[in-house]
Amino acid sequence: MNMRTAEFETWVGRTLQQVEDALEQWVPSDAPAGLGEAMRYAVLGGGKRLRPLLVMATCEAVGGQPEAALRAACAVELIHAYSLVHDDMPCMDDDVLRRGKPTVHVQFGEAQAMLAGDAMQALAFEVLTPDGEQVPPALQARLCSLLARSAGHAGMAGGQAIDLASVGHPLDEPSLRDMHRRKTGLLLQASVLMGAACGETSPVTWAALADYGSAIGLAFQVVDDILDVTQDSEVLGKTAGKDQDANKPTFVSVLGLDAARRHAEELRDHAHQALAASGLSNAARLSMLADKVVERDS
Amino acid sequence: MNMRTAEFETWVGRTLQQVEDALEQWVPSDAPAGLGEAMRYAVLGGGKRLRPLLVMATCEAVGGQPEAALRAACAVELIHAYSLVHDDMPCMDDDVLRRGKPTVHVQFGEAQAMLAGDAMQALAFEVLTPDGEQVPPALQARLCSLLARSAGHAGMAGGQAIDLASVGHPLDEPSLRDMHRRKTGLLLQASVLMGAACGETSPVTWAALADYGSAIGLAFQVVDDILDVTQDSEVLGKTAGKDQDANKPTFVSVLGLDAARRHAEELRDHAHQALAASGLSNAARLSMLADKVVERDS
Repeated sequence: MNMRTAEFETWVGRTLQQVEDALEQWVPSDAPAGLGEAMRYAVLGGGKRLRPLLVMATCEAVGGQPEAALRAACAVELIHAYSLVHDDMPCMDDDVLRRGKPTVHVQFGEAQAMLAGDAMQALAFEVLTPDGEQVPPALQARLCSLLARSAGHAGMAGGQAIDLASVGHPLDEPSLRDMHRRKTGLLLQASVLMGAACGETSPVTWAALADYGSAIGLAFQVVDDILDVTQDSEVLGKTAGKDQDANKPTFVSVLGLDAARRHAEELRDHAHQALAASGLSNAARLSMLADKVVERDS
Repeated sequence: MNMRTAEFETWVGRTLQQVEDALEQWVPSDAPAGLGEAMRYAVLGGGKRLRPLLVMATCEAVGGQPEAALRAACAVELIHAYSLVHDDMPCMDDDVLRRGKPTVHVQFGEAQAMLAGDAMQALAFEVLTPDGEQVPPALQARLCSLLARSAGHAGMAGGQAIDLASVGHPLDEPSLRDMHRRKTGLLLQASVLMGAACGETSPVTWAALADYGSAIGLAFQVVDDILDVTQDSEVLGKTAGKDQDANKPTFVSVLGLDAARRHAEELRDHAHQALAASGLSNAARLSMLADKVVERDS
């Protein structure tokens, strides 16, 4: 490990701890009738936390407000985690394993899992709108706007609807890209843009960061599809080979494995170019996060 | 019908049309893969729209910003409507009839119903955070804060978790009140407070409106419990006698029917007193809404 990598890994470790501590504080342990327990099970102590890392790295790159970024990081992770809870339920993907643990509905029952997901989505917007002076109200509104639009019908939920409808139906490559842009891409991009919103950016920088976020959003999914066929469940912490079994279209099924790998690398290069075009002098961590997305093995 | 009632009913009709037109515009018809269709089915053309009426009447009483109030009215109705979609699902109440129509999961399948509910919650926050100048950003943030807190673990979702856990377990009266305060009361109260937030209010007025909202929130549920045993399914547009069948505690089962009726009237009187204490000169519609909550027959 060279010094640059070592410094990056130290930053990752420190940031993950900060996010974990904040989630530990903000996800209630005292919500009624076991709801808090289910919420905490779903979001604490697991996951790669890529979205929070993107928020925090982008905020640092633009010299933004760290308190706002930490809230944005936790909010976007809550949205991501709630979507996994609902996605794993029997009426959706019917999955029993997530992050190496039984899924929330297996552990707490379907009704509690649905409510926990619902409450986590609401909590994301609670976290973004604190009383008091820590986060300026206009920034609170901007963060809510970015998050809601990436999570809703035009974004994540819409992508999941396409995903549902696509089982057993061959999607062509443009449709597959559109699905993934919505399903995972827009929330990853929103993570970057929420970080950017915590500071001041020129329109050029904003557009470059949006471009970066879009590229790594798609790269993330391409790599997910590759890992689904090349890794086993134990490494992934979730059921491997699932998309293939369900006859779901993936980048691997549409492009083939080698072309999918090349595509992931092209997207990483695109992300690096976008950072170069951003005019930001402090984007090394964003650059390394792009590498991390493509080179991960789980 | 006296003149005061006639004027009120005209206002109700006009306001409901305004809310319906706005929802028609904001709930997407073009969301992918049938998601928009399910969302529109769930929220358009039905329901009493009590929450939007409370938002709009309160905004008018405080001389607030109508554009912001219309967005708040639609947002709170979206939250309410999503909660019904999820609540009706087989893993929760397993209901097949709502507003006289098949429930969303019966019509569109469980997965689409879950996604439609999820997307409706996100849409509520999209509606509250428009680009441009119609709603000042600080007000956007305030509305998001009020809505998220009433919908989440401490509010509606938490109340539903208590409800889930209470089936077959006798709740005492304080616990029953706590459950309903969270499950329906806080969102009704938030409707009032979101309307109030659209204008300028003194702390005294704010507290009085919160008191009013709390009283009608509870009254609404007491009346719901009465109607559940005194009306048939056709009048209610949903399955009657359901709580009794499920051995769920209700105000009728805890207090008895006569005492429940008296309690509803006391709560209406309390609501009227709160309005008198508010110092608002223009609260007649709020007063009549309190009557409407208690005197409704469906």
